[in-house]
Amino acid sequence: MNTSLQDHIKRFISLDDNQFDRLGDYFERRMLEKKQTLLSEGNACHEMFFVVKGCLQICYIKKNGTEQTIDFAIENWWTSDFMALHSHTLATLTIKAVEKTEVLVLSAFSQKRLFAEMPEMETYFRLIFQRAYAASQRRICLLYEFSREDLYLQFCKNFPAFVQRVPQYLLASFLGFTPEYLSEIRKKNIS
Amino acid sequence: MNTSLQDHIKRFISLDDNQFDRLGDYFERRMLEKKQTLLSEGNACHEMFFVVKGCLQICYIKKNGTEQTIDFAIENWWTSDFMALHSHTLATLTIKAVEKTEVLVLSAFSQKRLFAEMPEMETYFRLIFQRAYAASQRRICLLYEFSREDLYLQFCKNFPAFVQRVPQYLLASFLGFTPEYLSEIRKKNIS
Repeated sequence: MNTSLQDHIKRFISLDDNQFDRLGDYFERRMLEKKQTLLSEGNACHEMFFVVKGCLQICYIKKNGTEQTIDFAIENWWTSDFMALHSHTLATLTIKAVEKTEVLVLSAFSQKRLFAEMPEMETYFRLIFQRAYAASQRRICLLYEFSREDLYLQFCKNFPAFVQRVPQYLLASFLGFTPEYLSEIRKKNIS
Repeated sequence: MNTSLQDHIKRFISLDDNQFDRLGDYFERRMLEKKQTLLSEGNACHEMFFVVKGCLQICYIKKNGTEQTIDFAIENWWTSDFMALHSHTLATLTIKAVEKTEVLVLSAFSQKRLFAEMPEMETYFRLIFQRAYAASQRRICLLYEFSREDLYLQFCKNFPAFVQRVPQYLLASFLGFTPEYLSEIRKKNIS
């Protein structure tokens, strides 16, 4: 069993060694090259993804044809198009690797079998979703509170390593800037 | 046991009649008058709330001192300050009744006992949070896609009864308008 996921699970619930050994049967390891697509808008979505190493970009195509980044997922985060997964509709989101990335894939089918064998994992996923929803409540507060420029400065302050790691055009897309405008803000705040 | 919550639970999981009878022991019914506060920013948050009848406003005080509405909860929705609940920190959100409202309160203590007695309820809450997080992913897409004015028009089209029900100054706050600007948009789109 992958140790990153094992450590993550231990933060929320208790499983014995035998259970951890069997966990590996339910997850599929997938390696992505930089810019490789994991989920495409318009396709069926039956899987969720745990980032072991690397970074994923979650985005969609706006009506004007441009790509809009709505989120990133780095180590120890779960992601997917959860509306498509939950309601069995086609994905409206695309998920791609920002850099070389290793994920563990849990299909809806495997998840169902996993819950039947280890009901403790229901608790783990309840807490994962509760935490993700809590974070999105906070994010919505930030979107109301700060201007886009202040959001960028907050982001740099809170996640300096992340700002170094992600290409600037993706960070600009996430913050709703043009890359040119982001470049201007950076210059202004460096000088 | 309250029939609204019972019907809601049935949409996600199966419980027998005996379990439904016992469920009532874990929830506390609370009636709120219009504008009455259910949770105050700065207080401990140990509870989550299911709206049986009525409407709740979820808001916080911005740095400039104004009240910012970040969400509403109507019938069949669960709400709380989930970050405070999850991380045992003080609430940064305030929850108030928009109109006369009936809620069922589930304390963290009762939830723990409930899961011990009926592990099926872990599945119910996992699905509730998964759905809430999925909806917030979609909401973030809408915030990127539409101007504030278009968001209002979409809102009127998708939730006409809700727009009639909620005071206009709260709807304006939710959409990030001043009440005066909302009034202008309404006039423009009626004429």
